[in-house]
Amino acid sequence: MGQTDSQLSTVGRVAIVGTGLVGGSIGLGLRSAGYPGRIVGVGRRAETVRRAAALGCIDEPTTDLAEAVRGDTNVLVVLATPLGAFEQVLTALADLSGDGVVITDVGSTKEQVCATAGRLLPDPSRFVGSHPMAGGERHGPDQAVADLFVDKPCIVTDEPGTDSSVVAVVESLWRTLRMRPIRMTPAEHDRKAALISHLPHAIAALIVQVACRSDALGLASTGFLDTTRIASGDPNVWLDVFATNRQAMLDAIDAFGSDLAQFRQMLESGDRAGLFDLLARCRLQRDRWGEAFGGENTTKGE
Amino acid sequence: MGQTDSQLSTVGRVAIVGTGLVGGSIGLGLRSAGYPGRIVGVGRRAETVRRAAALGCIDEPTTDLAEAVRGDTNVLVVLATPLGAFEQVLTALADLSGDGVVITDVGSTKEQVCATAGRLLPDPSRFVGSHPMAGGERHGPDQAVADLFVDKPCIVTDEPGTDSSVVAVVESLWRTLRMRPIRMTPAEHDRKAALISHLPHAIAALIVQVACRSDALGLASTGFLDTTRIASGDPNVWLDVFATNRQAMLDAIDAFGSDLAQFRQMLESGDRAGLFDLLARCRLQRDRWGEAFGGENTTKGE
Repeated sequence: MGQTDSQLSTVGRVAIVGTGLVGGSIGLGLRSAGYPGRIVGVGRRAETVRRAAALGCIDEPTTDLAEAVRGDTNVLVVLATPLGAFEQVLTALADLSGDGVVITDVGSTKEQVCATAGRLLPDPSRFVGSHPMAGGERHGPDQAVADLFVDKPCIVTDEPGTDSSVVAVVESLWRTLRMRPIRMTPAEHDRKAALISHLPHAIAALIVQVACRSDALGLASTGFLDTTRIASGDPNVWLDVFATNRQAMLDAIDAFGSDLAQFRQMLESGDRAGLFDLLARCRLQRDRWGEAFGGENTTKGE
Repeated sequence: MGQTDSQLSTVGRVAIVGTGLVGGSIGLGLRSAGYPGRIVGVGRRAETVRRAAALGCIDEPTTDLAEAVRGDTNVLVVLATPLGAFEQVLTALADLSGDGVVITDVGSTKEQVCATAGRLLPDPSRFVGSHPMAGGERHGPDQAVADLFVDKPCIVTDEPGTDSSVVAVVESLWRTLRMRPIRMTPAEHDRKAALISHLPHAIAALIVQVACRSDALGLASTGFLDTTRIASGDPNVWLDVFATNRQAMLDAIDAFGSDLAQFRQMLESGDRAGLFDLLARCRLQRDRWGEAFGGENTTKGE
């Protein structure tokens, strides 16, 4: 049992749009933290939201966005659908949102999402983007867990025109879920997320592809298992991530490709000192980060 | 409690040279399987072999290879030191090995190791190379566990001149440890191991390097944790792996680099169908392999 951040206690209702792994876990985490307001789950498919309610992720299931957003003075709407549905949901929200409505999202890219919100919403300052760095390659409310977000970073967008009272509400959601909010511009988020998440995803898929082409999977073991876990993610979800972060991904690929070429050169020329320096430095950096992240060496099948 | 393969029961003594994570786990696994013979541990550092004995990994610690190998009719010697020490150990074994001695190793590359054994041993047919696909990035006998090898593949080298009775002894060791022995030539092993293990290791290090250069580690979370786990491996161990498998590594880098360039091209041109096909295919291949490998999605911090 955690604690509800005081700022969030002023919000009478959290409307979670999309009650899959992430949306469902937000509901479970809010309940676990003793959030006193109402948690409404909205989805296109009645079956999914009903299942989320049966699992205790939400108090009230509905397929009607208007019903979910209206009825309380202060409402926090969290877009937790795949990125591809954001435009449609934001269009619908444009007619529903008033002064008491704060909107955020959980999308893996931020520049295009924030621009879309800025274009579609009557008062763009009511929207602040989020990217909770938590998830998994399995989907649906049955995968939801209350502690999905604990101790993980959550990026909250901060740009000219951002309303600090709106940021405060959004950050209070993530603090209640025991995340570590980090403010940055959408562009900075996208550039960095490409390096630690989007590029590694593409690489994991390509490692599988190269190994399969040479019929090498029979030798694969635990190292391969961990390295390629994220390659089991939903292709449609990742296509949207890549498509909405194209330039940062291209830059990340180029940076990585250049480092790979340098590694190849050191290997070919037998530059043992250079290779040692690279491996030792990366090991140290990875271990320091891992220690700060929680000290475990893998996600334990999470 | 497992069972000792009948062929291994004819071996009176197993001499494990190097009693770290892998060597120590071999000893624990043999004990757990009820292996009736003597398990001797040999190491350069008396402290490490004594520690391995105290942990129950071996019956008898020694720093004297001659003492470890002599004294029984049928002896199985397992080289479990880092690759860099193999030449020295094989040179010493050349004076010690007779008809009753079978030698194998646990090195991550096989072509150069088998060639070295062929060059140094008076009867090269007494040597058959192995690569148990199990391990971890942490080292020393304190990391040893009896079930390290269970259900994982173990490559056993098979080439012209290989003595089938020697192969049978070596395979019986790995079967006793509940591995799945797979025979192939050293060259085939090295080509495939580069793709599923050595290249992924280099890539994990480079992912860390690229992310650090752009100060992006603050956003990193569980995906990054799993993807880069192997980057925490000992740089000296991996330098030896790369150095003894240089050509296969260069070929693997080129194959991967070519696929990365193709991915970049699809991304830049907005080829959504091509990207979907790639991601969906890799996901399916990874999931099928993972299901066969054991159904877990990560190593659970192993």
